[in-house]
Amino acid sequence: MKKAVVLVSGGLDSATTLALAQEQGYACYALSFDYGQRHRCELDAARKVAEAAGVIEHKIITLNLDNIGGSALTDTAIPVPQQATEGIPVTYVPARNTVFLALALGWAEVLEAEAIFIGVNAVDYSGYPDCRPEFIEAFANMAQLATKAGVEGRPIRIETPLIHLSKAEIIQQGSRLDVDYANTISCYDPDTEGRACGRCDSCRLRAAGFEASGIADPTRYQPGVN
Amino acid sequence: MKKAVVLVSGGLDSATTLALAQEQGYACYALSFDYGQRHRCELDAARKVAEAAGVIEHKIITLNLDNIGGSALTDTAIPVPQQATEGIPVTYVPARNTVFLALALGWAEVLEAEAIFIGVNAVDYSGYPDCRPEFIEAFANMAQLATKAGVEGRPIRIETPLIHLSKAEIIQQGSRLDVDYANTISCYDPDTEGRACGRCDSCRLRAAGFEASGIADPTRYQPGVN
Repeated sequence: MKKAVVLVSGGLDSATTLALAQEQGYACYALSFDYGQRHRCELDAARKVAEAAGVIEHKIITLNLDNIGGSALTDTAIPVPQQATEGIPVTYVPARNTVFLALALGWAEVLEAEAIFIGVNAVDYSGYPDCRPEFIEAFANMAQLATKAGVEGRPIRIETPLIHLSKAEIIQQGSRLDVDYANTISCYDPDTEGRACGRCDSCRLRAAGFEASGIADPTRYQPGVN
Repeated sequence: MKKAVVLVSGGLDSATTLALAQEQGYACYALSFDYGQRHRCELDAARKVAEAAGVIEHKIITLNLDNIGGSALTDTAIPVPQQATEGIPVTYVPARNTVFLALALGWAEVLEAEAIFIGVNAVDYSGYPDCRPEFIEAFANMAQLATKAGVEGRPIRIETPLIHLSKAEIIQQGSRLDVDYANTISCYDPDTEGRACGRCDSCRLRAAGFEASGIADPTRYQPGVN
């Protein structure tokens, strides 16, 4: 059976990506990161998503990116914006997808996997440079040169099944495949009980996606959020 | 003053690279990894090298690559070869330089550094795919697309001052810049006191380099090694 490493963050997009990889017939190996993110409940969500999907293995790599700082998602001194901002937002984590894909590449090589799945999206997204198709293509090109597998003629593909979908289309795909979105969390600033703020960029994209999809939104919000 | 992130492993090549970056006028930020390598004394060597050079900061990122396995350098179940082998050797750590450069990229972006220095070498090397110039070029291309700095027109350069030097030339460059090679360790299989085995690929390249350079070899070998 063909194998894939799937990056699972605990969010809506990666849960859908995992379901799509399984639909394509891959034996899936889920990979998550404990990178000092302020929203630690993401990891609990990632565990629930991986378990519900019945992955072969779920690995969580610890990585102290908070040590590097530079992002509202890892540095508690930088507040998470509550409104849309111009340009690349402060929630951008420097080189995050490059680091995650690099580690996925290492594991994929050990597993002799054919593909890495990542739920990046260039439609309803926050404007991060490392979510764009041109970045993914450059990463795949680099990966072929970087690895023993690539040099020996078995390049590991980088699959991005969500890249051109709207948030509503992503939710419709996941619902079709019985993804339980109640297991997922998208909020950049959840409370200690994992309830969403309803105001950050990620919450707004998620809520608008459910609204447009016609599918009921199972998100648990903090008290007082409409 | 222009800034650079320099990957410092504790080996001879990265110690020389650090000295060359300083000679070029960079304020240097050393980056090392605790990645479950079996030769942990590398990290002590990295600390000595960074301190002797007087870097601005030395960061050690913990990364459980042993969890991924697949290499004699991180998996104690795979023995380190004591003779030269054909093709890419088992000491290759899957996607290691990709992972290290990705993390250096994140830190470089936060520091607003202009360059990342890495001591890869395509002459006297072990045949790893991620030490070749074409890999470095593909990484730099990917990095420009991955980062906020790249998108905003300030791409971070990947500098490889050793890439076309022989091991003897590297040692001559370092000696010219007063690098104390007694601080460094190259062996893939040192003993608990950090003494070199004298037989692994890396020991053989190092010893031949000192021999050809005409510079005295300060390497401490295990008892019984000629």
